[in-house]
Amino acid sequence: MKEIEPINLMNKFSLFEEEWTPKIIGELNNHYLKICKLKNNFVWHSHEKEDELFIVLKGTLLIDFRDSRTVKVEKGEVLIIPKGVEHRPRTNGEIVFNLLIEPKTTLHTGNINHQLTVKKLDWI
Amino acid sequence: MKEIEPINLMNKFSLFEEEWTPKIIGELNNHYLKICKLKNNFVWHSHEKEDELFIVLKGTLLIDFRDSRTVKVEKGEVLIIPKGVEHRPRTNGEIVFNLLIEPKTTLHTGNINHQLTVKKLDWI
Repeated sequence: MKEIEPINLMNKFSLFEEEWTPKIIGELNNHYLKICKLKNNFVWHSHEKEDELFIVLKGTLLIDFRDSRTVKVEKGEVLIIPKGVEHRPRTNGEIVFNLLIEPKTTLHTGNINHQLTVKKLDWI
Repeated sequence: MKEIEPINLMNKFSLFEEEWTPKIIGELNNHYLKICKLKNNFVWHSHEKEDELFIVLKGTLLIDFRDSRTVKVEKGEVLIIPKGVEHRPRTNGEIVFNLLIEPKTTLHTGNINHQLTVKKLDWI
């Protein structure tokens, strides 16, 4: 049997510093389980074919929408953004810890090819 | 635009008491986001086609395997069980809060039709 071991989320977050650079911590059902540190502004983007899930483990995540609404997602809260909805994740200067589960094919910047786009994600 | 609102996990857990009865709190990409309260022993089962993800938000989850190994999953830890691997979730008498993301077709008891099997899950 393949080794089945628990993954400690905070331990994994302690292993890297880069912001807006998702790291893979597990895989299941053709999806990756990823963690990401978020700080300040990300890029406006949408995902054509995939709903996006944010699970906030530390800090307060802000998500701007094109109708001028901003949704605040606190630690212990989850936000699902339906496919096609343009949004901009950001934080108020603090570092936010985020847990994601995404199809293996998903790019975190969605429809945008940006300097922040990471095309080959690392496992940690 | 469809309303996009944060989901507070602990608030959702406060809305029900039943153990081993997953509740749906969101949907994305043909998966459900679910929460479940776990206490004492569940049934031995495996999932033929789906890897299983446990995200422990409160308490300590124990998972028994047929090779006599027991894996302890603490609050803030995640465990992925590959498809086909028989396992029994249980707790040491305490209530454990678990977050799951599963294909819409998944039954929580996997290959087993048991009195604990819930075939029609409720949204909360």
